[in-house]
Order: sequence, then structure tokens, then C-alpha cells
Amino acid sequence: MIQNVTLVGAGNVAWHLGAALEDAGLVVDVVYSRNYSNAKALAERLYDAVPTDSLDFSESKSELFILMVSDNVVQQVAEEMTLPSSGAIVVHTSGAVPLEALANAGLYVGVFYPLQTFSKGKKVDFSKISICIDSKSERILDMLAEMAYKLSKKVYHLNSEERRKLHVAAVFACNFTNHMMTIAQEVMESNGMHFEMLEPLVRETVDKAFAIGPDKSQTGPAIRGDSKTIGKHLEELDGKARYQEIYKLVSESIAGIEKE
Amino acid sequence: MIQNVTLVGAGNVAWHLGAALEDAGLVVDVVYSRNYSNAKALAERLYDAVPTDSLDFSESKSELFILMVSDNVVQQVAEEMTLPSSGAIVVHTSGAVPLEALANAGLYVGVFYPLQTFSKGKKVDFSKISICIDSKSERILDMLAEMAYKLSKKVYHLNSEERRKLHVAAVFACNFTNHMMTIAQEVMESNGMHFEMLEPLVRETVDKAFAIGPDKSQTGPAIRGDSKTIGKHLEELDGKARYQEIYKLVSESIAGIEKE
Repeated sequence: MIQNVTLVGAGNVAWHLGAALEDAGLVVDVVYSRNYSNAKALAERLYDAVPTDSLDFSESKSELFILMVSDNVVQQVAEEMTLPSSGAIVVHTSGAVPLEALANAGLYVGVFYPLQTFSKGKKVDFSKISICIDSKSERILDMLAEMAYKLSKKVYHLNSEERRKLHVAAVFACNFTNHMMTIAQEVMESNGMHFEMLEPLVRETVDKAFAIGPDKSQTGPAIRGDSKTIGKHLEELDGKARYQEIYKLVSESIAGIEKE
Repeated sequence: MIQNVTLVGAGNVAWHLGAALEDAGLVVDVVYSRNYSNAKALAERLYDAVPTDSLDFSESKSELFILMVSDNVVQQVAEEMTLPSSGAIVVHTSGAVPLEALANAGLYVGVFYPLQTFSKGKKVDFSKISICIDSKSERILDMLAEMAYKLSKKVYHLNSEERRKLHVAAVFACNFTNHMMTIAQEVMESNGMHFEMLEPLVRETVDKAFAIGPDKSQTGPAIRGDSKTIGKHLEELDGKARYQEIYKLVSESIAGIEKE
């Protein structure tokens, strides 16, 4: 059973996951950041955690090291870490980084990927989060699953290939839906209307998508083939070439799905 | 006060609005559809409504005629209607059609636009819907507002220009977010994963957008300038040229917003 952990990284994921792990009864021993004051800021929010900017963990009693650094430095940081000689598990938390990036980090490696969008200043309820775990070792998989279940009942074992596809899907479902809302916000606010007016509509859209499937719940001018409205909307977006392009392309894609 | 109404149209909007008006204590006298059996199907769901495929309403006692036909025939249907000689209000329910389309329908015209996405088989809670009303007559505006407040507390007076902009925003916030989810669903299911795995992520995305603003809550590879992940994702979408195009264009737009 995993009891003591070290957070390697002090960004958004570390802030949220660190607090959630403590709430679940685990102990955060150490918070690492290459920027010491960032490590300190997070460590101070946790019960007994000590901040550090050193990757020498040879004296650590942590059973698990959770890498929460930028995707492009996961491998490098993993390789620079000195683990306790008694051994420890190293996991990363990225949707996009293969398990193999940890190949040189030690014998015991895995992935612990909470499928969520984390921002400072907005607390996240981990019990509602899908957590994706992976490892080549059944024993580590069991240990990660046990820890994940303390946070959430939605725990999935996905391999690197599946996780990669999931990450692409998540970009569309989360990052791109958010951008569609940003464009909507801009159109509303630049015309003196509040973005909040759209809230019931957006929530119903999401409710419907998960009730009957987004493929079956598409509405709007594009799916109706209402080219007159589409033309008018493109005029309304005059002067915003990129939004016009997005409008056209997404409308074509919506119409295309119907035709296939 | 409006008490008796006629539904001109028997599509999704009419099904939902008809039931909601009855729940709010109004009386639906007649349901019109050019397809009689459609009118009959809806009329049978309502208390005392009579179906018809005739636009001759000269003997009607309805005070309000609600046009819920396709945008492109609103004007034509409005002009073909014969109203009671005592006069009646005619409104349409479209986000995209100007008030002027009803100019020849009678003296008393307006707009009653419920900002929602309606699909058969998914009941809508009108109390959570934003309803946008418009008329050049203050008296009609008051009557429409009174009726709207029986359904929802979110009633807005928007002119044609504002309603047109709102409709563009709604296409992005509703229709296009739905399409982003459809693409996500396709990526998930074609790789043996359930779309439902993404539900907590999507709901948090929406919660965050309305809590702190979508412009402030953007996450993902594009806003981080993580071109390595973007490149990998485009590879993952190999063979789906349109999705690749959308991925590229929306990512550029996200990155651009940051830079501005």
C-alpha cells in the first residue's frame, strides 16, 4: 500500500492532487520544484511536506514519486532523479507522455493520469474525476488502483496507445469546447450582452450530449443545411477572419457527418 | 393578458413550448402543421388543442399565434395566415429571423425566442431557459414579458440586431461545442473507449467557464504553445483530414487569443 508520496512539480496538477491525496489519508513528504519558492508555497499548504529544489531523493521514505512537470521535461526530470536505494515507484501524470519515457527512471514505473482540467482558484472534486492508470507490472497497477480508488470511483486502466487517443479526444471535448465558449463570450460582450445568458443553453447541450450522444443531439443551421443563416452569420463575423474560418470549417464538418 | 394561443408549427420547438405553456396555465386552442398528421400528433398530447392544416384562423379566439416553422418560411407562412378580424398578436420564435419578417402579418407582431436546443425525447426545463422577447409596441412587449415570466425568470428584451449576434454566439456555444464532443466521441469509440469517460472533464470545463470566464480558463497544448503535443495529436488524427484541419485552426485561434 502506498502511504508516503513525493510531489515532483508544484504547478496546477500538484496543487490539486497534493491536497486530494492528503484528504484521502496519504502523506506528502516532499514537494520538489526547480524553483524553490514554488515548492515552498505548495509545501506550506500541506500538513508535513518539506520543500526542495534538489532531485536527490536517496534519503526519502516516499514509496511513490509523482511527476507533475511539463510534458517535454518528464523524461529528463525522471532520469535526473536519484531514488532511495530501497526502491520506489515513479509515475507521471500526463495524457500525452508514453510510459516508456520513464524507462530509465527505475524498475517500478507507471502512469497516474487524472483526466481533468486544473486551474488555480477553482477547487476540483476528485471524486468525480476519471483517473487513468497504467503500468507493465500487475503489482504496481494494483497499488496505483488502490490509491486512485481512494480519490475516485472512476478508475480506468489504459495503455499508452489508449491514453494518447483519450488525450486527443479530451482536447476536443475540453480545450476546444472551451474555445468555442470563448468566441461566444467575445461575440456577446462586444455587443453589450452577458455571456451568462448562454449558460442554460450550454448546460442543456452537455446534458443532452451525455444523455443521448452528441452525434444524435446536433442542432443548428449546419445540420439543417440552412445555408442562408450560415451566410448571414459569416457576415455578422465580418472583420474576424479566424472566427469566420472556424465557423465555415466546423459547419462543413457538421454537415459532412450527416452525409456520411 | 394572453390566455389562448395557437401553435403554428408542430416540430421540436412546438412540442416543448406547447407543453410548457399549458403547464403555465395557458390554453393551446389549435396546432397547425402543413402536414396534418404532425399537427394531430402534437394536438393529442395537449389538453384541448385541435389540429389543422389550414392557415385560415379568421374564426379563432386565440390572442397569440406562435410561429414555429423553419426560418426560411417564417415570412411566407406569416403572410399566408388569415387572422381573426378582432386582431391578434403574431410572434416568431427564431434567433435568426428579423422582426421585420412579420411586417405584413398584422399590426401586432413580436418575437418570442427561447434560447435553447430542443430535441424530441429529452424534456426541457423551461424555468432554466433564457427567453428573448422583442416588439416595437410597448404594450405587446409587456404582454410577451408577462407570458415569458410564467415560464422562466430569465427574460431579456433584445432587438433584432442583438438577437442576431446572440444567435451567432449560440451557434458557437451550443452547436459547435456539441460538434467538438461528437469528434471526441468518435475518437474514443473508434479506440474502444466510452465517451462517458469524458463527462467529468466536460462538466468541469463548463463549470469553470461560467465561474471564471472561458477566456481565463483555457487549458491544453495550444495555450501552452506545446507544439510537440500538437504535432503528435495531428498524427493521431491521420486519415481524418477534416478533424486535423479543425485541430490546427482552433489551436491557432487559441494561441492567437493569448498573444493579442
